[in-house]
Amino acid sequence: MSAQIDQVSVVKKANIYFDGKCVSHTVVLADGSKKSVGVIFPSSLTFNTGAPEIMEIVGGVCKVRLDGASEWQTYGAGTEFKVAGNSKFDIETVETLEYVCHFG
Amino acid sequence: MSAQIDQVSVVKKANIYFDGKCVSHTVVLADGSKKSVGVIFPSSLTFNTGAPEIMEIVGGVCKVRLDGASEWQTYGAGTEFKVAGNSKFDIETVETLEYVCHFG
Repeated sequence: MSAQIDQVSVVKKANIYFDGKCVSHTVVLADGSKKSVGVIFPSSLTFNTGAPEIMEIVGGVCKVRLDGASEWQTYGAGTEFKVAGNSKFDIETVETLEYVCHFG
Repeated sequence: MSAQIDQVSVVKKANIYFDGKCVSHTVVLADGSKKSVGVIFPSSLTFNTGAPEIMEIVGGVCKVRLDGASEWQTYGAGTEFKVAGNSKFDIETVETLEYVCHFG
């Protein structure tokens, strides 16, 4: 896992969700595609997806239940999980999570 | 004020200070110099500087008292304030602050 994302633009305004439980900044690649780098503070949240996503865990620990799944899976630093488009997932942040969300 | 910072690398790990009251991501420019894009949630904090800083306010409102000053100044979106190196400043975030910190 690389430590940084190179040759991008960063949007100065933050994305703040769930009363600040989730904070991210949007990163725009040369081809116009987007990622976000962010943090989720300890909480239990449900995220809806538009485009498919890959959530890369950079730090912290979370438990995730994808839409339609009955089991929770645990993810820590260096792991990732995929979420289908037009779907959702439940996430319980056990330790403050640092992540990169890759869209599309 | 530009809406984004172009041609940079973004460090995936976040910088989390003051129990999460301040969250930022480090941005590295082509010349190796650094900025950070971040958020400060409503709070009263004191920041210490190493290098001199320019704090560009992207969103929200804060009151700031520079080291040695007796007066508080209010800053909102589109404004900025400068902080000397090896100094400090008190900041009261009235509304969740989105900022870019320019170092050096």
